[in-house]
Amino acid sequence: MQVTKNLSMLTDFYEFTMANGYLETGISDTVAYFDMFFRRVPDNGGYAIMAGVEQLVEYLNNLSFSAEDVEYLRSKHCFSEKFLDYISRFKFACDVWAIPEGTPIFPGEPLVTVRGPVMQAQFVETMLLLTINHQSLIATKANRMVRAANGRAVMEFGSRRAQGADGAVLGARAAYIAGAAGTACVISDRDFGVPALGTMAHSWVQMFDCEYDSFAAYAKIYPDACTLLVDTYNVLRSGVPNAIRAAKEVLEPMGQRLKGVRIDSGDIAYLSKRTRAMLDVAGLNDCKIVVSNSLDEFIIRDLLMQGACIDSFGIGEKLITAARAPVFGGVYKLSATEDKNGVIIPKIKISENVEKITTPHFKQVWRLTSGEDGKYVADVMTLRDEIIDPSQPYTIFDPTHTWKKKTLTNFSAEPLQVPLFKAGKCVYKPREIGEIRAYCAEKTGRLWSEVCRFENPHPYYVDLSQKLWDVKHEMLKKHS
Amino acid sequence: MQVTKNLSMLTDFYEFTMANGYLETGISDTVAYFDMFFRRVPDNGGYAIMAGVEQLVEYLNNLSFSAEDVEYLRSKHCFSEKFLDYISRFKFACDVWAIPEGTPIFPGEPLVTVRGPVMQAQFVETMLLLTINHQSLIATKANRMVRAANGRAVMEFGSRRAQGADGAVLGARAAYIAGAAGTACVISDRDFGVPALGTMAHSWVQMFDCEYDSFAAYAKIYPDACTLLVDTYNVLRSGVPNAIRAAKEVLEPMGQRLKGVRIDSGDIAYLSKRTRAMLDVAGLNDCKIVVSNSLDEFIIRDLLMQGACIDSFGIGEKLITAARAPVFGGVYKLSATEDKNGVIIPKIKISENVEKITTPHFKQVWRLTSGEDGKYVADVMTLRDEIIDPSQPYTIFDPTHTWKKKTLTNFSAEPLQVPLFKAGKCVYKPREIGEIRAYCAEKTGRLWSEVCRFENPHPYYVDLSQKLWDVKHEMLKKHS
Repeated sequence: MQVTKNLSMLTDFYEFTMANGYLETGISDTVAYFDMFFRRVPDNGGYAIMAGVEQLVEYLNNLSFSAEDVEYLRSKHCFSEKFLDYISRFKFACDVWAIPEGTPIFPGEPLVTVRGPVMQAQFVETMLLLTINHQSLIATKANRMVRAANGRAVMEFGSRRAQGADGAVLGARAAYIAGAAGTACVISDRDFGVPALGTMAHSWVQMFDCEYDSFAAYAKIYPDACTLLVDTYNVLRSGVPNAIRAAKEVLEPMGQRLKGVRIDSGDIAYLSKRTRAMLDVAGLNDCKIVVSNSLDEFIIRDLLMQGACIDSFGIGEKLITAARAPVFGGVYKLSATEDKNGVIIPKIKISENVEKITTPHFKQVWRLTSGEDGKYVADVMTLRDEIIDPSQPYTIFDPTHTWKKKTLTNFSAEPLQVPLFKAGKCVYKPREIGEIRAYCAEKTGRLWSEVCRFENPHPYYVDLSQKLWDVKHEMLKKHS
Repeated sequence: MQVTKNLSMLTDFYEFTMANGYLETGISDTVAYFDMFFRRVPDNGGYAIMAGVEQLVEYLNNLSFSAEDVEYLRSKHCFSEKFLDYISRFKFACDVWAIPEGTPIFPGEPLVTVRGPVMQAQFVETMLLLTINHQSLIATKANRMVRAANGRAVMEFGSRRAQGADGAVLGARAAYIAGAAGTACVISDRDFGVPALGTMAHSWVQMFDCEYDSFAAYAKIYPDACTLLVDTYNVLRSGVPNAIRAAKEVLEPMGQRLKGVRIDSGDIAYLSKRTRAMLDVAGLNDCKIVVSNSLDEFIIRDLLMQGACIDSFGIGEKLITAARAPVFGGVYKLSATEDKNGVIIPKIKISENVEKITTPHFKQVWRLTSGEDGKYVADVMTLRDEIIDPSQPYTIFDPTHTWKKKTLTNFSAEPLQVPLFKAGKCVYKPREIGEIRAYCAEKTGRLWSEVCRFENPHPYYVDLSQKLWDVKHEMLKKHS
């Protein structure tokens, strides 16, 4: 994976000043627990998709500081020599757990939990958030587009509009996990195994004396993978007729078929239907129609509702930047500390904004699946040492309207967080990207369709166990 | 600059298939001209800010392919051995010109022009667009926020919500060029000299037995740079009183002053006014008030209109992702080729959408400045060999409503594009980032305030010279 670079210095300056401060005040080794969680699904969706764990692991595995880094910090004249010495010998020592990539995730759930000396557990905040926020944003968006395309291929074509190189490369990775068929971005194929796809640019067509010559030339060079861009001049009067001619005069004598045509402008619904008819009349029923041009999930859905004849979608800026809602608002909050005897002291962040109150303590998230239809019923956050035993009836209740209860009998229960690091040692098992993609498809398939719709999705239940609810409620009462 | 990594393989797959195709058809050495330009200013603004040139130069300087890259391409079974040999010995041979970073730019202007063998000039499309699109997007956005802040400091605090690591690092660079005071992102300071800034997180406060203890501890460690976060519990009842106490009991005995307080939640307008009053009563008139929490240019403007007492703004996700309009839609289009004798053959891309018709030929952009007030009057795109001579009256005209004319007399004229590469050799002179930032401030200061406003800015004139207009008009007539 050649994109690796050391990002240890990609951190907010206050992570350094706080770490130095913890050391100076003598509490740097106090064990702290931090949770990463998010508060709202982008685009008012019903669920998000976890992504970026592999890059988080890579970041943590490479967390170290060069002599130049230490010299740079020294030049700031605000860090003690003791701290600079610590930094120069920095060795990651935390425990880290995360929900696996490709898993549907919901607001409030601890996606990543870090336990360790506060000066370290705090320090990793910036990159942990950046990594999970970015890829979860793009995975969540891509999954919406894949849903809208309803079985047709969604191809990620947005590198040129990405917010930086990593935006392109890792965005393509996240999109693939969430169900995209591939990407135009070659480096994402080389480094992550996301299939690289592509056709041609208008400039190819313009470089030849006429459109037909450009198509014929391309067909001769790529006879078994020939998709022609038909909108450089006029789709119906010129592009499609020239594509058909290239199919007949160049490809068929070679024993090949025209694989596809791409339409990149104009009224896609109308043009795709007319194009389909022209291709069919010419006997090219197997020629696919690819469309592109500022598409997103809503335009995809509308096109299909209008009966557009489309086999695959090439999506640019609206996917790679999640343009309608380009922020995944994950935060990283202290949830507990440990006293000298290892006893957990839960911590809560109060806010006048109820939505911003945190859920204290070292937690686990359990996902409960119905034994009847295999669909997810609810998630339950528990204290870490609680076990949900499906052999017993289990009562879930709404954490706000606590009289809303439901007792489950025929169900299975699975804890979602898995370990990534134990005392700084990586225990994460890399997964093939195809496996993550299949896992994501399988898991999202277990969501009620009511949770999956774009408008006013049914809120999925994320409840607290009685024990966790009691802890939180007790702390709220004490603080108010 | 340790962030450097080789991004030669960050390209759309079709750039490779087209390059191979040009080689196979024998036209790979045909000299082509490509322009990068954009069609609309994000947020319906009146101008954008050019940024990303330094990273484009870096990319082009490093453009080369490893044996592994060639092996990867070979495994795709669609490239000729001749092409793979070419790629393995790839040597950039194009001429490249660009408008310097920090310059105000307008729709339709060639921001970057590449001239060279078509297989190379085409190939660099993806990264050229990615680099300029990304940094120009963020620079343009940051400049809006700087304008709204009206002299107060704007600090870039968004790394954790950036779309990937480069989004954070280079976004901070672009924001600084456009007038931000600094960034929280340490690596952007180390590698690009963007001043690193920061305060503390809520978790710092939570790690101590009480808020005052956390403030006192921080003040002791950072007596000469002490800014305290006052909203962990309650800004007015707890945070500000404790900050004042730390100023009196810890800092003043050390001969130091409290530098600032930061408010990160609640009604900023109200809280900042009350905080200012409390600080002033306590004799802390020099203590600055920093605010953060989902700010953007419109909220900044509103806060200041409401008389909020704010000295500086910490801006997160809305800046680093340009959240309201997260795409800079630059495109890269063929504008000309050369025949065997080096004669330029202009190329035009026709579209039913008039906005999408390109301006053909090898061009220059001239910026005309009034001799009266030093303000910019208009930009004029010309054929490359035209000279605008300010000693003679010069008539500009609207390219659509050609009867709208204006003859300039007292003016100066400056060509905007400068060379970056000559026949593949880098001729770009690196500029200090502080110099680029000062240049940006000076140049944007020459824009009419009517062009700078957020709502319905006056469209700045971007005209064509008579010669260029004639070429374009002639080609349009021929194609219609």
